[in-house]
Amino acid sequence: MSTLVRTGISLDSELLARFDRAIAKKGYRSRSEAIRDLVREHSVASDVARDRIIVGTLTLVYDHHRPKLSERLIDAQHHYHGKVLAVTHVHLDHRNCLEVIIVKGRGTEVQRLADQLLSLRGVKHGKLVMTTTGKRLK
Amino acid sequence: MSTLVRTGISLDSELLARFDRAIAKKGYRSRSEAIRDLVREHSVASDVARDRIIVGTLTLVYDHHRPKLSERLIDAQHHYHGKVLAVTHVHLDHRNCLEVIIVKGRGTEVQRLADQLLSLRGVKHGKLVMTTTGKRLK
Amino acid sequence: MSTLVRTGISLDSELLARFDRAIAKKGYRSRSEAIRDLVREHSVASDVARDRIIVGTLTLVYDHHRPKLSERLIDAQHHYHGKVLAVTHVHLDHRNCLEVIIVKGRGTEVQRLADQLLSLRGVKHGKLVMTTTGKRLK
Amino acid sequence: MSTLVRTGISLDSELLARFDRAIAKKGYRSRSEAIRDLVREHSVASDVARDRIIVGTLTLVYDHHRPKLSERLIDAQHHYHGKVLAVTHVHLDHRNCLEVIIVKGRGTEVQRLADQLLSLRGVKHGKLVMTTTGKRLK
Repeated sequence: MSTLVRTGISLDSELLARFDRAIAKKGYRSRSEAIRDLVREHSVASDVARDRIIVGTLTLVYDHHRPKLSERLIDAQHHYHGKVLAVTHVHLDHRNCLEVIIVKGRGTEVQRLADQLLSLRGVKHGKLVMTTTGKRLK
Repeated sequence: MSTLVRTGISLDSELLARFDRAIAKKGYRSRSEAIRDLVREHSVASDVARDRIIVGTLTLVYDHHRPKLSERLIDAQHHYHGKVLAVTHVHLDHRNCLEVIIVKGRGTEVQRLADQLLSLRGVKHGKLVMTTTGKRLK
Repeated sequence: MSTLVRTGISLDSELLARFDRAIAKKGYRSRSEAIRDLVREHSVASDVARDRIIVGTLTLVYDHHRPKLSERLIDAQHHYHGKVLAVTHVHLDHRNCLEVIIVKGRGTEVQRLADQLLSLRGVKHGKLVMTTTGKRLK
Repeated sequence: MSTLVRTGISLDSELLARFDRAIAKKGYRSRSEAIRDLVREHSVASDVARDRIIVGTLTLVYDHHRPKLSERLIDAQHHYHGKVLAVTHVHLDHRNCLEVIIVKGRGTEVQRLADQLLSLRGVKHGKLVMTTTGKRLK
């Protein structure tokens, strides 16, 4: 079972004062929360390194006038062995579409899907973000 | 007006052979498209460096049981001086939500919004991606 | 004056257990030191973002048979308005040299020097790292 | 045998004009060289992804007053199964040292050495860069 525990660290006072100023600028109201976020970020990076199940959001910008591109985007998603949770489509202008594809799977699988989609002709730019499923990250 | 032009580069044959193998693995069917993508990636990075108008997609994972978090997430988005284009919400499990917020604005503004949202208590992890509006990127 | 102070954070027990395992794998003997390193990393990133004085180490791999390249590398370093602290040269093989140039200056200046050197013909690859001068980072 | 070959790409004229301006700012005198550098960068990233032999330069900033730190830094380097090519040491001030350790080996080995050194008490900050041995990158 997961419970709240307390841990202490000793730090140089100047370093701590600078950290406090930097996190206040970002909007943090509590030092404790800022340090927790650093620990969580470390944990997510380690999940990615060990190829655990993660959630990926892939952002794509493409030209929807490109023949057959929409079919190819959908095709690749159907052949993907992870799970597509949702797709959001935004019409940026009369030519350009932005799509965010949210997928769950191992990091390497998600990366392979991203490579496939990003290499399609008509896809102008895109980037993949890997984050936590939330389950093991409290 | 924008037209298609041709440019040539000379390259070491071995380097080119390795590039061809690497891009084929990623799914590229044409070397020309792979090189165009490198040029586009460079162009997007330069837009970000000069603080031009970009589209950002911010991925957040949070615990929706956290009191007042939803209100704070919405509040921050309303005070943001760029433009929120769309928000997608996915229920990861009974506690955890993933949200993708798609915004248009200068890179520094988008970053500020991201900092504000990521520093909220209850937001476990998140990441910001900056991409092109598509307009100047053919 | 700078002194040692103590701060406490409360964390989920499972998250902490995973963090402890991950840092042990990396070689950390103390959780406190691992968290301090996260805080220091945050502090360095913030120095870079505010364009403070940092130390940069620029790694270059180049072909020393390329005519005039050595002169150009030295020229650019002499025109640089920061301070070159040291240069290390390694003969990788009969053609290839690796050079690490250690410079002190504002992040933007150091980046400009890096851009100039990396764009020279004959320089095959390189990367810039920005770190602390150590002074404000205990 | 490796020879020079020529390849052509077609690009949107506006995209190319923007690329030309961006690379000129960085100091490139030739578009061809800038594109070659993008291809080389791709090639190095692919070497790292496949865990090929690379050259790593690890930058460390540490407090040399910390007892036993110097011995531990040297010890770890001796247990490392790659090859340490050179070490450069800079006295940043009376307390702070910067060290650049240049190593040759597989990316994962080099990363392990970096983790070991960065986790030592007294090492304040550091970063690892992976680059090419130059051999396969013309």
